[in-house]
Amino acid sequence: MPYFDAASSAPLHPVARQALLAALDEGWADPSRLYREGRRARLLLDAAREAAAEAVECRPDELVFTPSGTRAVHDGIAGALAGRRRAGRHLIVSAVEHSSVLHAAAAHEADGGTVTEVPVDRTGRVAPGAYAAALRDAPGGVALACLQSANHEVGTLQPVAEAAEECAAADVPLLVDAAQSLGWGPVEGNWSLLTASAHKWGGPAGVGLLAVRKGVRFRTVQPADERESGRSPGFENLPAIVAAAASLRAVRAEAAAEAERLRGLVERIRARVPELVPDVEVVGDPERRLPHLVTFSCLYVDGEALLHELDRAEFSVSSGSSCTSSTLTPSHVLRAMGVLSEGNVRVSLPRGTAEADVDRFLEALPGVVAGVRERLGAPKPAEAADPAPEPEPEPDELVVDSLGKRCPIPVIELAKVIGEVPVGGVVTVLSDDEAARLDIPAWCEMRGQTYEGERPAERGVAYRVRRRA
Amino acid sequence: MPYFDAASSAPLHPVARQALLAALDEGWADPSRLYREGRRARLLLDAAREAAAEAVECRPDELVFTPSGTRAVHDGIAGALAGRRRAGRHLIVSAVEHSSVLHAAAAHEADGGTVTEVPVDRTGRVAPGAYAAALRDAPGGVALACLQSANHEVGTLQPVAEAAEECAAADVPLLVDAAQSLGWGPVEGNWSLLTASAHKWGGPAGVGLLAVRKGVRFRTVQPADERESGRSPGFENLPAIVAAAASLRAVRAEAAAEAERLRGLVERIRARVPELVPDVEVVGDPERRLPHLVTFSCLYVDGEALLHELDRAEFSVSSGSSCTSSTLTPSHVLRAMGVLSEGNVRVSLPRGTAEADVDRFLEALPGVVAGVRERLGAPKPAEAADPAPEPEPEPDELVVDSLGKRCPIPVIELAKVIGEVPVGGVVTVLSDDEAARLDIPAWCEMRGQTYEGERPAERGVAYRVRRRA
Repeated sequence: MPYFDAASSAPLHPVARQALLAALDEGWADPSRLYREGRRARLLLDAAREAAAEAVECRPDELVFTPSGTRAVHDGIAGALAGRRRAGRHLIVSAVEHSSVLHAAAAHEADGGTVTEVPVDRTGRVAPGAYAAALRDAPGGVALACLQSANHEVGTLQPVAEAAEECAAADVPLLVDAAQSLGWGPVEGNWSLLTASAHKWGGPAGVGLLAVRKGVRFRTVQPADERESGRSPGFENLPAIVAAAASLRAVRAEAAAEAERLRGLVERIRARVPELVPDVEVVGDPERRLPHLVTFSCLYVDGEALLHELDRAEFSVSSGSSCTSSTLTPSHVLRAMGVLSEGNVRVSLPRGTAEADVDRFLEALPGVVAGVRERLGAPKPAEAADPAPEPEPEPDELVVDSLGKRCPIPVIELAKVIGEVPVGGVVTVLSDDEAARLDIPAWCEMRGQTYEGERPAERGVAYRVRRRA
Repeated sequence: MPYFDAASSAPLHPVARQALLAALDEGWADPSRLYREGRRARLLLDAAREAAAEAVECRPDELVFTPSGTRAVHDGIAGALAGRRRAGRHLIVSAVEHSSVLHAAAAHEADGGTVTEVPVDRTGRVAPGAYAAALRDAPGGVALACLQSANHEVGTLQPVAEAAEECAAADVPLLVDAAQSLGWGPVEGNWSLLTASAHKWGGPAGVGLLAVRKGVRFRTVQPADERESGRSPGFENLPAIVAAAASLRAVRAEAAAEAERLRGLVERIRARVPELVPDVEVVGDPERRLPHLVTFSCLYVDGEALLHELDRAEFSVSSGSSCTSSTLTPSHVLRAMGVLSEGNVRVSLPRGTAEADVDRFLEALPGVVAGVRERLGAPKPAEAADPAPEPEPEPDELVVDSLGKRCPIPVIELAKVIGEVPVGGVVTVLSDDEAARLDIPAWCEMRGQTYEGERPAERGVAYRVRRRA
């Protein structure tokens, strides 16, 4: 069954499995003890730290192992903020960071700190100079800035080296969340702190990395603990740490060749999906992107139904749609990009993905999307492309009442009535679904209609669309 | 090589290893995803939670998995304190809790909270009514009380059920750190929160348990995260969680028989060591204790040298002495008990320990201790037992200058001169070693001399000892 959700969790690399097994036998004792078993564990821990530091391109004494990428982010941000409390309490993050970063930012705000979210363009990328601007416009002293190396939902690479220069010029440390990219290569540029997560590169769960460059002020906010330089409390998860380091080295050795191969497969998906499926928007930067990840959104499609049907067809993918059971709002990444969120699919290929599986996916997708659309009563592509009726002056605006209906129904109902609107005329969609705020403007952009804005209605929000053609 | 330090970390149970391997194949995906691999991971996670909850004797929705016992303690205490902030900011702990509890208490004090340490008797046990007294005498509203189920250094069982009753009467939740005992059985009584650590019972590293009874106020202080009921952020370490739950069930099935067997072996050590080695104090409660753990201290012995020699003789044990490289002060547990800390050895037998290995240990120990004592120039037992010289009025007190000398030298020098002191006379030991504060009174108790107290000296502290016989 093709698993195309490596960005959530990659299957365990064979080297990770081997190293884990060996370390279960050799590395179960407490590495802080002086007897034989403890010394053996300490040797394994030291070697793992050296290997991981080499891959991160930092010194071993700058790197600690944490229990997860999330804890690395939480503890890294809290420690950097505490260490630089005298410099100020402002935090800068991009609008498309992983939720662990945004949740740490929210916790900082709840604690009385302030936060700037740096916007991104339609590809999900931070603009050059955006961090310099955020630093300049900060309401107070900036303690820390954070920028991911690559976006986890759309694959867009961020200008980390440039942002690091901008931060260095302002004497502010930059924390880079490298969770999605570290398996492909080191983070370039003069970063100050770096976080990562082993299960994203094919290592085991239970291991994150937190690197803090020498000279960066850092004060652990956790209760005291002698392990991991006092930066990550708790007994070291040694077998997993050994497996994480060994697999990082292994995936790096294969990275260049595998990146090229997967880049070709992703290129095929990027090119073929819009040809095979009508009303699709492929999102994310087409060039400056992770090699293995592509995201697209399908108009008139319920994300959860789409995932379910793809699962039935034996493809495991994820979605940033609001229409999935785990969330009621569209992905903050798609929202920040201003792109369609409905019918969203993220395909992230694990290393070793077979070309034939990608081809099978491309064969299956059109039928799956068509099936979901049909069950939802979505307009057929031809129907949606109907020529407009002759313009007739219409004093009364058409109103579509989609109150109480969940995504993608409001957009489907809009698409169904647009044919009845004269060119130049306006249709208003009433909706109380949060996704409509993102998806109605995105639909207009895709269908060449004019989005005229929203205003509060008696119930929900009124979205106005003017027919252009 | 006999490994006798199960209380630090137990060797991996075969069931843990098996379960881990199986879960590496079945449980690497994200359990919050809806596709096949995610659903399979979710099933494993749910089953592990049910099994662990059954062993803890709580509801599955009261239990979350954390990355370690330490994080369970840190997050559990912080969450309970935050949840009951309106009730007050006072925290009650016993003086012999694990360092993770005491460090959390120190962090609470640094944050403006207050803490009472409940004392223990010479066996390391909290007195009946001690928690009631601490609750009554608290300087303000009590948010939380903590008591370990069993002490990690001396094995003494604590009166947890009684303390829970005392806390319940005051409407204060009790958190029980069950790290050392959970493999042997559930914690009795009406506890409110419970923490544990899988690698202490033969599970893998990387898994702790935090149980919070329904109705106990709890507010996570970590940044938001949807995993583990929002109480333990980060991607679940699923293979290790599965292994932890499976091995807990397995060790419980073997617990009654193995406890009886190990209790007998520990009984042999408790009885034989004082017969085989002169000047030894076996510490901890002789009856109300963990089945597998025994601790003793050897006069005139440097703890680090002792561990080193035992390691050379192929025995892995640990020590609460101050004379180990990792610490400069004696164990807070031995200090709170008021017992000798020098030459301290903790033997904690892993399940399956062979009787023959215990016998070999008892054979090797006398020679090892004698060797260390000889190199330190310690008084021979016969020498130390010399009859006192005839009492002669001595106007000038004898003073032993041990300034700048580390444990156990001050006690050795005291023992060497005591023979020169007339009965009824006083000797003063000057020492700037923190261990002397504990070990000189303990020596007096063991040797039947009278400890007269300490006073500050020009340098260090002057300890006065009166010769009784």
